[in-house]
Amino acid sequence: MQTDYSVADYLLDRLAGCGIHHLFGVPGDYNLQFLDHVIQHPAVHWVGCANELNAAYAADGYGRCRGAGALLTTFGVGELSAINGIAGSFAEYVPVLHIVGAPCSAVQQRGELLHHTLGDGDFRHFWRMSEPVTAARAILTAQNACYEIDRVISTMLTESRPGYLMLPADVAKMAATPPVTAITSPVMQSDETRLDAFRRHAQALISGSPRVALLADFLARRFGVQKMLQCWMRDFPVPHATMLMGKGLFDETQPGFVGTYSGAASPPTVREAIEGADTVICVGARFTDTLTAGFSQQLPRERTIDIQPFAARVGETWFSGVSMRDAVNTLISVCRHLPRNPPNQVNHTDVPPRVHQGTLDQSALWQTLQDIIRPGDILLADQGTAAFGAADLRLPAEVDFLVQPLWGSIGFCLPAAFGAQTACPERRVILLSGDGAAQLTIQELGSMLRDGLRPIIILLNNDGYTVERAIHGAQQRYNDIARWNWTHIPHALSHDCQAECWRVSETVQLAEALEAAAHHHRLALIEVMLPKTDLPDLLRDVTRSLEARNNQ
Amino acid sequence: MQTDYSVADYLLDRLAGCGIHHLFGVPGDYNLQFLDHVIQHPAVHWVGCANELNAAYAADGYGRCRGAGALLTTFGVGELSAINGIAGSFAEYVPVLHIVGAPCSAVQQRGELLHHTLGDGDFRHFWRMSEPVTAARAILTAQNACYEIDRVISTMLTESRPGYLMLPADVAKMAATPPVTAITSPVMQSDETRLDAFRRHAQALISGSPRVALLADFLARRFGVQKMLQCWMRDFPVPHATMLMGKGLFDETQPGFVGTYSGAASPPTVREAIEGADTVICVGARFTDTLTAGFSQQLPRERTIDIQPFAARVGETWFSGVSMRDAVNTLISVCRHLPRNPPNQVNHTDVPPRVHQGTLDQSALWQTLQDIIRPGDILLADQGTAAFGAADLRLPAEVDFLVQPLWGSIGFCLPAAFGAQTACPERRVILLSGDGAAQLTIQELGSMLRDGLRPIIILLNNDGYTVERAIHGAQQRYNDIARWNWTHIPHALSHDCQAECWRVSETVQLAEALEAAAHHHRLALIEVMLPKTDLPDLLRDVTRSLEARNNQ
Repeated sequence: MQTDYSVADYLLDRLAGCGIHHLFGVPGDYNLQFLDHVIQHPAVHWVGCANELNAAYAADGYGRCRGAGALLTTFGVGELSAINGIAGSFAEYVPVLHIVGAPCSAVQQRGELLHHTLGDGDFRHFWRMSEPVTAARAILTAQNACYEIDRVISTMLTESRPGYLMLPADVAKMAATPPVTAITSPVMQSDETRLDAFRRHAQALISGSPRVALLADFLARRFGVQKMLQCWMRDFPVPHATMLMGKGLFDETQPGFVGTYSGAASPPTVREAIEGADTVICVGARFTDTLTAGFSQQLPRERTIDIQPFAARVGETWFSGVSMRDAVNTLISVCRHLPRNPPNQVNHTDVPPRVHQGTLDQSALWQTLQDIIRPGDILLADQGTAAFGAADLRLPAEVDFLVQPLWGSIGFCLPAAFGAQTACPERRVILLSGDGAAQLTIQELGSMLRDGLRPIIILLNNDGYTVERAIHGAQQRYNDIARWNWTHIPHALSHDCQAECWRVSETVQLAEALEAAAHHHRLALIEVMLPKTDLPDLLRDVTRSLEARNNQ
Repeated sequence: MQTDYSVADYLLDRLAGCGIHHLFGVPGDYNLQFLDHVIQHPAVHWVGCANELNAAYAADGYGRCRGAGALLTTFGVGELSAINGIAGSFAEYVPVLHIVGAPCSAVQQRGELLHHTLGDGDFRHFWRMSEPVTAARAILTAQNACYEIDRVISTMLTESRPGYLMLPADVAKMAATPPVTAITSPVMQSDETRLDAFRRHAQALISGSPRVALLADFLARRFGVQKMLQCWMRDFPVPHATMLMGKGLFDETQPGFVGTYSGAASPPTVREAIEGADTVICVGARFTDTLTAGFSQQLPRERTIDIQPFAARVGETWFSGVSMRDAVNTLISVCRHLPRNPPNQVNHTDVPPRVHQGTLDQSALWQTLQDIIRPGDILLADQGTAAFGAADLRLPAEVDFLVQPLWGSIGFCLPAAFGAQTACPERRVILLSGDGAAQLTIQELGSMLRDGLRPIIILLNNDGYTVERAIHGAQQRYNDIARWNWTHIPHALSHDCQAECWRVSETVQLAEALEAAAHHHRLALIEVMLPKTDLPDLLRDVTRSLEARNNQ
């Protein structure tokens, strides 16, 4: 057993210092030296995954829940298998540290013809390939290891985007001294002059606006202003919404929350509440095609305030070097002096008690699911009918909602659920995935069962790539998938399987299965049979706009 | 239905012209326009896969059997999921054309914030990321499409390495005119002066060598000299061998074939036959670490002739611009004048008739498998105990042996078997895979069953990543995997499953299962229970050398 403190130990101590207590990945001979240290480490736990892309998704899901995640792969074959996951983390601002175990430094220098290389003696190809999808990267050496570990992690946390460390097998074992001070993730100090100017401009715009609305989205969570926004809406509410990517930012049952905003595809009341305002304050929003049904939002620049991680805009004027936190604080202090005009409370009690009857379709599905969501749940919805159907759910307080509508890699949510449940074992995880999506990453269900995790998995079986059918080629065989026996899969992927499985086609059956799943201490898989081309309304609108754009 | 001839049709006609009659991939909204043309095309058949990495592996396996393969993914999420497969094809010289369906040209030019992008309006990130692992790439436009399709395919075939085409959705539908002449994959014209000099040098070396041996490997197949070598060894045999990566080049039952050469880890007779020669002719060999048990080959430059795709070496002198074909022809004409000293016939009849008894271990496994291999089989063996154990098999004529020892991405072989069987439906496919490896890519088993394919799948269950255990950390939990019910998996991954499954732990049970599998018209899965740390001898030697190199 290694008793001398090494670079490997330093790196693991740094992970633990970021709140990362699980490392996902797949072993390979170039990372086994490092792995020995992981097994020994008191605060970071190794979580082996069935393949590297799934491991990257798991680390991302973990990062979305815990604040940051980490992934270990092996040189070449492992890291390239994972790179699509890292790209998604980059696109959606999830700080995941990708550690790549690599051949020894001397071997690299000699340019040897090793396995897991392109056979040309160049060991930097894959490090270069990682550049577009990482905020910081380093090749660790005896000389630079601790400094570079700190630099990459610090940048990763500041930018909220992935970092990459190539860790040669010899460097992992080299002596190091333990860290003394924590890595500071510097909260950006806003430029005072510009912050002041921002305040004046914002004040001017807002004071001339009888109606003010707030549209917050995912970057508000990533850059640490979620609590501030929640308190703001609790204390000085204005009509507010998120887009799909920011769903879960707010307690959606509170006064003032109007629903999910999706441009022209929004429910009319939501659209009116946001677009009808004189000034719309946007915090942490990125108006991507799928979120806005093809850029159909009507939010003219002159009527909007746009708060981004490191800059803020009022009307046509940008104030660069203003942090999100400072900008939001400024707006809260400006808005608290507004005349109080409490938004209409959406009256939920008018909804008649649910009667579960009839064959399942999209509408019945989402109504039934609405009834079972509790505060504290973690809900994941894969790209497709799952994510867009979930847009209409009204989430209670403290629900985390994980979707990937910008990068949009189907299959992401199943391993991400593995990561989320690992991050938060005491919380209930509900995974909603289409059948097409689940096929991409199904093997991680075996890992969930191995680790005794107990999410509720709701598998939407509409016999194929429904979102693709909606966009184009509804009857084409390329939108068909192989037909699996979903309820047999947990038992195939584990010995002594403890899972409970149902196939449901009627609403009352779904309600019963959910009730049982909520009370049993087992992993639950509920296969929900749905009509092949039935779509949530939002998805219908979004897919129509996507098809139009692909036919220019 | 599209009746005008389009760029999509042109591209598909070019694929068909290369002998590529199946396109593997996963649909995504950016490639659906192109997919409509695939469905209509009379000569290219769409094969949907469960995920893009598996599709890339399948296209590679197809390419190894058919000469070239093709893959279709969608922008960003699809192509990056596949890139590890393309990298393996690049490293191991398999010509796979990667077609990426992309957003419309106008949308790209406007830099819109689309799904499947990094959210920065730059649509060239992933094209750039593909550069290290492709021989040629192009972004297709209305102006350049047909020219660039031809250029990329031509380079792909000449270099025997992947090509990449970004195909915007609008460009796919643009009008084109059908190709008139076939794409010439120009056989390189050797420089006559250098070829002549090569001949003289080779003649001088060989005529002074009483003992000449031939060591051929995978590039001989890729660059089209397999038949020439087979005829040479049939007509003017010298002692000859391949390394693991070239196994299957020869009829291994013929006189002169000595076995698999692996440097110091070779069986002694093989080592002596090759290293004891006065001149060793190497054709298409790359001496990688895993093939040579850590570069332990004793083949001094002054005693070797080294034939590569576009250059040849005699002793210390390289002759650049000499094609493999011309070099081999030259050597054949030089060697035919050697005094005939037919190599000793290895007497196979001395082996006593097999008695199948006792508990299964590595030794019994390979002996039992040896008995069932027939001419014409396609054998795939995943990186690990499967591949290195198979090294000692004596292959009859016309057996293709697919392994990936250089890139070495575990899990490759299962989807590659799907590709190989799709390429050669009339041939028998036998897949040998460890349990750890099979978990990475298992979903493609569902695709095999969907398509009615009937390979024989031999699943080596030694409860974990045995090759990693052998290298390092035999008892460490990171080398454990989730325990699956392998014999239940075919039924979980298909309706109306037609597969037949066995679990065997005794030699006689394996023999019986193989006998049944050989005669039944069904997909067969045989789970072979093996001792956890039992290794083929070759793997033991190779892993020892790998561990030593990772501990420098």
